[in-house]
Amino acid sequence: MLFRQLFDSQTSTYTYLIADEHTKEAVLVDSVLEQVERDYKLIEELSLTLCYCLETHVHADHITGTDKLRQLTGCLGVVPEHSAATCADMRLVNGEKLQVGEVIIEAIATPGHTSCHMAYLVNGDRVLTGDALFIRGCGRTDFQNGDAGTLYDSVTKRLFTLPNNTLVYPGHDYRGHTVSTIGEEKQWNRRFVGRERQDFIEFMNHLDLPQPKKIMEAVPANELCGRVTA
Amino acid sequence: MLFRQLFDSQTSTYTYLIADEHTKEAVLVDSVLEQVERDYKLIEELSLTLCYCLETHVHADHITGTDKLRQLTGCLGVVPEHSAATCADMRLVNGEKLQVGEVIIEAIATPGHTSCHMAYLVNGDRVLTGDALFIRGCGRTDFQNGDAGTLYDSVTKRLFTLPNNTLVYPGHDYRGHTVSTIGEEKQWNRRFVGRERQDFIEFMNHLDLPQPKKIMEAVPANELCGRVTA
Repeated sequence: MLFRQLFDSQTSTYTYLIADEHTKEAVLVDSVLEQVERDYKLIEELSLTLCYCLETHVHADHITGTDKLRQLTGCLGVVPEHSAATCADMRLVNGEKLQVGEVIIEAIATPGHTSCHMAYLVNGDRVLTGDALFIRGCGRTDFQNGDAGTLYDSVTKRLFTLPNNTLVYPGHDYRGHTVSTIGEEKQWNRRFVGRERQDFIEFMNHLDLPQPKKIMEAVPANELCGRVTA
Repeated sequence: MLFRQLFDSQTSTYTYLIADEHTKEAVLVDSVLEQVERDYKLIEELSLTLCYCLETHVHADHITGTDKLRQLTGCLGVVPEHSAATCADMRLVNGEKLQVGEVIIEAIATPGHTSCHMAYLVNGDRVLTGDALFIRGCGRTDFQNGDAGTLYDSVTKRLFTLPNNTLVYPGHDYRGHTVSTIGEEKQWNRRFVGRERQDFIEFMNHLDLPQPKKIMEAVPANELCGRVTA
């Protein structure tokens, strides 16, 4: 399997390029509009066929590159079931598996950051956690029908039941970490460790964060898979 | 093996934490002074014993965290043979192997960015290329006794003779790439591909880049392993 983590420094977003090295079929997870040129070039250089652009959720902080890549490559836009993205070509339900050559990507419903969010378990040994679980942190829960109690359950009852050595690849990191493990987060993620559900809800509900700068343009654009209307 | 790539967004520097997961012995390669707190915390959380702080070369763009980490952990500062870093506890010659538990790190002399520079081949399947080879690029050669012809030889006659599937982990990336392979760089790195030695020398000698912002403080500090004198 080819596995590439790519970083957008403007929004501290990680995009993941995953491919079967033999069949050359590929999927790009959580692409960023401003990085489409970089990512498309890499896909071309590696002689990959982009089959799917996959989203963990409707992002509020950046516009997805899905629509532009769909136009460039003919790939399908894939989103979680019940996503507000009306533009999608396919929707994945909890537990559904997307196959890309010999690579198996399993959708794991992990709502809470937004009401509709999937993590993706890749070949059973690494999980793309989107904005549900960050390295020593988690996504906020104060917009797009986010819910702190729901996020607590998604992380503690679902992601934390994966094997301890499962690699954790987050949707963002703001301090230069690239990867962690489920075991590490169960031990060191202070958002969850030693914190009861009700404590977590109160903590999250009092973060008082400013709105993401791009939310007013990003959410409507992402509901159209990143199609930017004039 | 535990292998962690860490990023300093201020200087776009990659630091690498490598450890034997059983013996818990660890080495940190190309640390950044401003990130010592982050890296030390991670080392503590993972219950690692930091044995060595290793440098690919004397950096001009950031101050190393070696001296601070040496004070915190008692680790040894390790630099390439003939390095101007007078503070080192150990020096590695070309081909020498540093053992950390079961992890083998082989020094590969790759001068040219600076007159004294080592790449490090880790367990035979991934190479930390420092500022000799970047993803689709290379380090500049216009200070610290850099020499474009020497860098051309280091990359084309030494690094490019590693197996094509060897993973390339660079010392910097400015566009959000994290990893490549030797095969990919041999095919797509336009600094070297299809460029004769003399062409490369002329190209590098006419880059007309501004001096690194921190060079006046970084180089003297790094010659003392990052000890910052008042």
